[in-house]
Amino acid sequence: MSMESVANSVQLPPLDNPHERQAVGGELEVVLQELIGLSLIGKQLHWSVIGPAARSVHLFLDELVGEWRELADVVAERAVTLGFVPDGQASAVSDGSRVEPVPVRSVVDHAVIWELARRVAAAAERVRERLARIGAADLVTQDVLVDVVRKLEQQQWLLRVQLGDRA
Amino acid sequence: MSMESVANSVQLPPLDNPHERQAVGGELEVVLQELIGLSLIGKQLHWSVIGPAARSVHLFLDELVGEWRELADVVAERAVTLGFVPDGQASAVSDGSRVEPVPVRSVVDHAVIWELARRVAAAAERVRERLARIGAADLVTQDVLVDVVRKLEQQQWLLRVQLGDRA
Amino acid sequence: MSMESVANSVQLPPLDNPHERQAVGGELEVVLQELIGLSLIGKQLHWSVIGPAARSVHLFLDELVGEWRELADVVAERAVTLGFVPDGQASAVSDGSRVEPVPVRSVVDHAVIWELARRVAAAAERVRERLARIGAADLVTQDVLVDVVRKLEQQQWLLRVQLGDRA
Amino acid sequence: MSMESVANSVQLPPLDNPHERQAVGGELEVVLQELIGLSLIGKQLHWSVIGPAARSVHLFLDELVGEWRELADVVAERAVTLGFVPDGQASAVSDGSRVEPVPVRSVVDHAVIWELARRVAAAAERVRERLARIGAADLVTQDVLVDVVRKLEQQQWLLRVQLGDRA
Amino acid sequence: MSMESVANSVQLPPLDNPHERQAVGGELEVVLQELIGLSLIGKQLHWSVIGPAARSVHLFLDELVGEWRELADVVAERAVTLGFVPDGQASAVSDGSRVEPVPVRSVVDHAVIWELARRVAAAAERVRERLARIGAADLVTQDVLVDVVRKLEQQQWLLRVQLGDRA
Amino acid sequence: MSMESVANSVQLPPLDNPHERQAVGGELEVVLQELIGLSLIGKQLHWSVIGPAARSVHLFLDELVGEWRELADVVAERAVTLGFVPDGQASAVSDGSRVEPVPVRSVVDHAVIWELARRVAAAAERVRERLARIGAADLVTQDVLVDVVRKLEQQQWLLRVQLGDRA
Amino acid sequence: MSMESVANSVQLPPLDNPHERQAVGGELEVVLQELIGLSLIGKQLHWSVIGPAARSVHLFLDELVGEWRELADVVAERAVTLGFVPDGQASAVSDGSRVEPVPVRSVVDHAVIWELARRVAAAAERVRERLARIGAADLVTQDVLVDVVRKLEQQQWLLRVQLGDRA
Amino acid sequence: MSMESVANSVQLPPLDNPHERQAVGGELEVVLQELIGLSLIGKQLHWSVIGPAARSVHLFLDELVGEWRELADVVAERAVTLGFVPDGQASAVSDGSRVEPVPVRSVVDHAVIWELARRVAAAAERVRERLARIGAADLVTQDVLVDVVRKLEQQQWLLRVQLGDRA
Amino acid sequence: MSMESVANSVQLPPLDNPHERQAVGGELEVVLQELIGLSLIGKQLHWSVIGPAARSVHLFLDELVGEWRELADVVAERAVTLGFVPDGQASAVSDGSRVEPVPVRSVVDHAVIWELARRVAAAAERVRERLARIGAADLVTQDVLVDVVRKLEQQQWLLRVQLGDRA
Amino acid sequence: MSMESVANSVQLPPLDNPHERQAVGGELEVVLQELIGLSLIGKQLHWSVIGPAARSVHLFLDELVGEWRELADVVAERAVTLGFVPDGQASAVSDGSRVEPVPVRSVVDHAVIWELARRVAAAAERVRERLARIGAADLVTQDVLVDVVRKLEQQQWLLRVQLGDRA
Amino acid sequence: MSMESVANSVQLPPLDNPHERQAVGGELEVVLQELIGLSLIGKQLHWSVIGPAARSVHLFLDELVGEWRELADVVAERAVTLGFVPDGQASAVSDGSRVEPVPVRSVVDHAVIWELARRVAAAAERVRERLARIGAADLVTQDVLVDVVRKLEQQQWLLRVQLGDRA
Amino acid sequence: MSMESVANSVQLPPLDNPHERQAVGGELEVVLQELIGLSLIGKQLHWSVIGPAARSVHLFLDELVGEWRELADVVAERAVTLGFVPDGQASAVSDGSRVEPVPVRSVVDHAVIWELARRVAAAAERVRERLARIGAADLVTQDVLVDVVRKLEQQQWLLRVQLGDRA
Repeated sequence: MSMESVANSVQLPPLDNPHERQAVGGELEVVLQELIGLSLIGKQLHWSVIGPAARSVHLFLDELVGEWRELADVVAERAVTLGFVPDGQASAVSDGSRVEPVPVRSVVDHAVIWELARRVAAAAERVRERLARIGAADLVTQDVLVDVVRKLEQQQWLLRVQLGDRA
Repeated sequence: MSMESVANSVQLPPLDNPHERQAVGGELEVVLQELIGLSLIGKQLHWSVIGPAARSVHLFLDELVGEWRELADVVAERAVTLGFVPDGQASAVSDGSRVEPVPVRSVVDHAVIWELARRVAAAAERVRERLARIGAADLVTQDVLVDVVRKLEQQQWLLRVQLGDRA
Repeated sequence: MSMESVANSVQLPPLDNPHERQAVGGELEVVLQELIGLSLIGKQLHWSVIGPAARSVHLFLDELVGEWRELADVVAERAVTLGFVPDGQASAVSDGSRVEPVPVRSVVDHAVIWELARRVAAAAERVRERLARIGAADLVTQDVLVDVVRKLEQQQWLLRVQLGDRA
Repeated sequence: MSMESVANSVQLPPLDNPHERQAVGGELEVVLQELIGLSLIGKQLHWSVIGPAARSVHLFLDELVGEWRELADVVAERAVTLGFVPDGQASAVSDGSRVEPVPVRSVVDHAVIWELARRVAAAAERVRERLARIGAADLVTQDVLVDVVRKLEQQQWLLRVQLGDRA
Repeated sequence: MSMESVANSVQLPPLDNPHERQAVGGELEVVLQELIGLSLIGKQLHWSVIGPAARSVHLFLDELVGEWRELADVVAERAVTLGFVPDGQASAVSDGSRVEPVPVRSVVDHAVIWELARRVAAAAERVRERLARIGAADLVTQDVLVDVVRKLEQQQWLLRVQLGDRA
Repeated sequence: MSMESVANSVQLPPLDNPHERQAVGGELEVVLQELIGLSLIGKQLHWSVIGPAARSVHLFLDELVGEWRELADVVAERAVTLGFVPDGQASAVSDGSRVEPVPVRSVVDHAVIWELARRVAAAAERVRERLARIGAADLVTQDVLVDVVRKLEQQQWLLRVQLGDRA
Repeated sequence: MSMESVANSVQLPPLDNPHERQAVGGELEVVLQELIGLSLIGKQLHWSVIGPAARSVHLFLDELVGEWRELADVVAERAVTLGFVPDGQASAVSDGSRVEPVPVRSVVDHAVIWELARRVAAAAERVRERLARIGAADLVTQDVLVDVVRKLEQQQWLLRVQLGDRA
Repeated sequence: MSMESVANSVQLPPLDNPHERQAVGGELEVVLQELIGLSLIGKQLHWSVIGPAARSVHLFLDELVGEWRELADVVAERAVTLGFVPDGQASAVSDGSRVEPVPVRSVVDHAVIWELARRVAAAAERVRERLARIGAADLVTQDVLVDVVRKLEQQQWLLRVQLGDRA
Repeated sequence: MSMESVANSVQLPPLDNPHERQAVGGELEVVLQELIGLSLIGKQLHWSVIGPAARSVHLFLDELVGEWRELADVVAERAVTLGFVPDGQASAVSDGSRVEPVPVRSVVDHAVIWELARRVAAAAERVRERLARIGAADLVTQDVLVDVVRKLEQQQWLLRVQLGDRA
Repeated sequence: MSMESVANSVQLPPLDNPHERQAVGGELEVVLQELIGLSLIGKQLHWSVIGPAARSVHLFLDELVGEWRELADVVAERAVTLGFVPDGQASAVSDGSRVEPVPVRSVVDHAVIWELARRVAAAAERVRERLARIGAADLVTQDVLVDVVRKLEQQQWLLRVQLGDRA
Repeated sequence: MSMESVANSVQLPPLDNPHERQAVGGELEVVLQELIGLSLIGKQLHWSVIGPAARSVHLFLDELVGEWRELADVVAERAVTLGFVPDGQASAVSDGSRVEPVPVRSVVDHAVIWELARRVAAAAERVRERLARIGAADLVTQDVLVDVVRKLEQQQWLLRVQLGDRA
Repeated sequence: MSMESVANSVQLPPLDNPHERQAVGGELEVVLQELIGLSLIGKQLHWSVIGPAARSVHLFLDELVGEWRELADVVAERAVTLGFVPDGQASAVSDGSRVEPVPVRSVVDHAVIWELARRVAAAAERVRERLARIGAADLVTQDVLVDVVRKLEQQQWLLRVQLGDRA
């Protein structure tokens, strides 16, 4: 029996408007790729940060990366729960994620914070824009994305305050 | 002082439309009975599964049962928080839960997965149907039930994929 | 190969008097249903207890329920070890357990203790009556049931002393 | 660069209606002060409770205080995430919190429960009133406050049932 | 029986000079209010710190707050052990604590350290002044306050060194 | 080489007034016997308490017993550190401890608290009387006994408040 | 209602031959006193052992004492479960325990092992003698005492082997 | 002093019929060798299992091996407790254990389960046959062997059910 | 001071042949990209696996991903230790890793194992080829890569045996 | 597909000189048998040690046995990684291990140390002799065996020093 | 701003007699050097102990070293808290510590205990002599040193008893 | 029997060229002294660091000190494993370690990093120079020193990057 026929007998979650399943899955795939993109540049900066605050930033980045990986798992599992397999491999992330790459060289600590802050803020904003649209299609998926925004915006705050008195 | 009079002095949560308290409580009772029903057939299959994957399914069932018991606690405590005592005893579950019983004999591993997948999918769908109605009455109870649906649908996925290439 | 034929090649535990396997299994099923019955009324009271000692009783009930669930697992697994699948689902428990239901409303703390004490004492006594008969058939199953009685009688003491100076 | 100018380059979360940021921040500040107020009277009663149930109430109060402190952190961090610094110091709490003070003397256990139950119920109700208004401005902040109400109402239940048979 | 009469039958700790019980209790109340005051401004700064070291200071403040809360508990429990109920609520702290409030806005990291260092040093000094006087009245209470001073002076060092090369 | 001669080569702690070593050791032995006496009646009541608060008192007694056993260890080890072997066996405790025995039958919960409160208060007072005398002989032993008094007086408070509104 | 009348309504465990309840309780009391006696001399030797192996014996004694205390708890709770309150206070142990006291002075390590080995062997033998008699009255109490003998005989072995090549 | 003479002074456990000590020891030695034999073939299969379920079986085998090693320890220590040193070295196990060797090559997962199931069933049966005989000589040793049979029969069930639908 | 000038004052590890630093760094970068590539396809398959063994493979993949991420960290940190910043971002991995992508759809469990086994074997072989060359340049880096090969070859075995009887 | 053909498609680790795979596997099998042999005599002595240091040696032996079992696992898994299934069953160990058996009777503590020290030293030396030969064939296997020698030689030191002043 | 000027604005702890700050700092430095000296000879003996008790002494030494390191930290941090930086480097310890070096060769176990016992006793005595003098200057520092003496004298006891019957 | 004669009977590890044992031991002693030297200056700076990053550096230093102490243990134990007792006492470290002392006064945070970075880099380089020479004598000791270099060079990186943008 193919995946499709199994889906017929053990039904997928019945969204109010079933033909939106594909659309919701696609939205989740984009969010997934953003989160994987963030986790890869997070690691990149974890290795390349320099400057007086390097060690502190190095440790902070690992916490952020841990949070992005966890959110990515939640998002991807919601997509497959809806019967949609998102693509989270290197080339799909490279093509699909709108997270800007970072330079491949040593980066000074405050620049690391600055670069990350911009990227996290932009990613949070892109997910936030999806909230209302997805809430109309599926309250449960909306709940997943509210969790993503809530965490990204909190990170955005933690990053933003580290830029506070720099001019 | 009776329960009622205490409720007068230390008020129950003020739903927007107070006479819906009884209705919301009743909905939560049904969900509770479904969850207890699932946890009892889960244990039943935990003991009676056979076949090459028996041990793995045996362990998986204990995780599911743990999750259903935890959700049942959350649901029942939300009901009493609203001043409604739901019935979670054997005969009430036997009468009220729409979860089909399973045969009382050894059951082969893939049949266990199949039987559970159908029951979890059906239970998830029944709770999902309640979401909008309850959201109108009480946002906080809706939040409780979104958690229930989110978890049940994730289990539904974990079960469904185990049926993937069987024909 | 059917369950029976497997049982022929990988033998079930050889009780001294093999035709008693069915009888021993049946005794274990009754004990199982008592324990599940206790765990369901335990949870019911956990949610519906009121009164000055409500919180303390609420916590105590969760410990008792935990112990009953663990004993139920041991008993059910002993039954299937002997090749007998007991029925632990809602309707079987509703029919087979001799544990009396409790009322579905708020119950005052001392009444909770009193109601439980009576039910645990009765259940302990019913299992104790089986000890000698089962010891004759299978020493290992007797050891399982001695553990059940030992734990139930200890709970009976913990409950009984809470009734001590009430008149 | 001032806080404001940084906010311009690394944008704050873009609420649908940006001029509501100040309003939402103000609502969160009030909730924060309520929670700090609760945690201070919780500690006060933790030290001054007497009576047969004193030890049990003493321990229960520390759990409640822990939960209020955790919620206060979540609420305050949501406010600063939105670019609003709430005031959580003694005089601001003294002025802004609507949680009534408790008497500074030994307080008998059941009176402790009664006093707390009234204050928690009132605080929960005040936050609940804000839910719809804030949901219109920011879904993520609403999610934070639903968590606050859910926890406060659960505490309200745990307190209320301890008053159950007292007349 | 009132608190007083119980105190007559199960005596309070017999200080050498019993009429000093009230005085010692009063001293402990002042120390308690200082410690609560510190913990509230500690949290306030935890939320409002900005600047390159914001995250490190943010974490450090939570450790300090944890230590102040623990000391507050020890001090308050010593007071009630002596039969004196101190007031630790918002308005009492607002009136009684000599810890200066901090501004309600974003505060740059080094200013946070500076502001805290001054307040902790002043608080430590005020408690230290009480040591000899209290030692004369009650060696055990003195032992409690030596612990408070030892911890506050250690924090004072940890804060002071962070100001070391700033001019 | 005998104990004495070893003591000559690896000297015992040099108290200011060496012939007081025997006296200090004797004081510690009395405290040890009080603490063992408390721990034995603590266990006795742990087994024989009845009444509505029986379980809570049962658990509380185990905490107290744990604290008394730990203090006894500290006191006995301080005595042998000074070269004095105290006697902590049943008959020595029976003869030397001034802690009154409790009746050998079921004891109602509030009577347990009352009986313990009186005994702990009396024991704390007897140790407190020794503080100044021992401080003159050995500051380190005084530090040990201040710890004992501080803990016993805290227990005395926890017990006393449980008697608060009983008449 | 007195203890007796409660016992009538919430029955004590129904031994086959009910008038043996007193006898079984008495046997358990003797075992309890032996175990408390062992734990007190165990601690005594823990403090007074000297010699090259002193530290190793010092640690070993704490393990043994821990095991005796745990067994004492199990035995005492079985006795009260049967409705019999045993006496475990200093003077009862001093009178009832047949465990010989040890000298109150420094004791060389191998003598400690020797003295303990004799006492544990004798105690194990005295409990073993009770096994058959108690099994006839109550299988569950027999199970408790088999656990006691099993542990004491294992300790006896651990002690005996340490004497192996000493002549 | 030789082992024998020590045995005279610190007596071995006094079996009812002392000349059976040697016999009981011999029985325990056989059980020990069976358990070591099982643990060695368990590890062998842990390394050589192949097939789709290889990883799951690989992990399961480590759990079984852990249980056999623990049981072996308990059995051997009971033997030496009785004054009998059993032989658990490679050649004794090779000669004395009746557990059949397994082939030294890759073994497919279901064959692993089949081979183990037969060997565990046979071993359990051989120990079970000893129960009554040993119970007559020593109740405590019987208790040890009941634990062995109980665990082996439970493993036998876990293995047997994995063969359930294979033909 | 630039990175280079700092490197002059606090020297980089002095390889025997310093101009090989760049070459060794480049080799480590390739290994890093392979490991990130593996971790991304590992997660992809974690989400898309179906079939009877889906859950077991799902869990296994998370362990493998955890091991690859840890090795990636060790490899990247060795590169920067040598003064070379490797590129681990999505597009670099997409271009540089020779790990083949997997299809973006549900994949049956045994196919998952097969696909992974091939990719891990190939990756292990590619790293192994580098061992001798790198050992000549830097023994410490060789030690890092031996750890990588050792772990990858162990995984290769764990994967290979799961294919054992499939034809 | 047979094991061999799978090996063709998912290649085994490509040693430089492939026909040495059999040889390396054989060397690992010998080391495995030595380690299992050590762990069996370690347990044997764990049970049969007597004398003043018996308990300390008893505990030390369990640590050594734990280390040997872990090394055995690593060694066996390396062998199967290379496609060679080593034999670790009782008769193979009995035939292949060059670790001398120990006598089956009580053994005095210092003799235990002496006997073990000789056997560990000999085993370490036999593995060390293999290092260079295996390094030429496979650097990764050499790394495994260096770990074995490093641990065995460290144990040899810990044993040797315990013999230091015995003549 | 220099250290001095910071000290002016964020005052150092105000000792009663401020010019004694230097003196108290100097006393703490001597104690620090003693403790580091002890920890270095502790490690030295940890590596060089031989004899039958070597392993037990080896483990004991690590505990002592751990305690000395912790005390050293407390002492050094108290010194810098008072504005005095003590010297804890190798040459300062070599010059300032009065702890005698130990020979650099294998040392028999009982000699290790003897050598340590003498050194710890001497160090404890030297710190004890400082107690009164420092108490006059600063009660808080006295509290720190009482902790040091209390721990050192306890170690002195643990060492002394191991010498008990040696002549 | 002297150490030498024991070494004859329980042989030391047989290096290929036995007369190099002394040489290898001497090399390990030098490394040991470097590591102890690092750990003492690490602690010194832990206490004397000041400046805005003081707390972060303070914590980082404790991690480094922990790593140096662990490596020192490994190195010293390898030396005695080879029969060579290295000297790790204060005067030997003061004479033998080539780690430069640091000034005894408050040191600003970035200067701490700079001073440490230089010392760690130099120490790493000195150990690295020994690798080839020692590999020729003993592969196992080489493996120990590769671990030392790998860790020191990683620390060197973590320190170096903190200097990155400072000019």
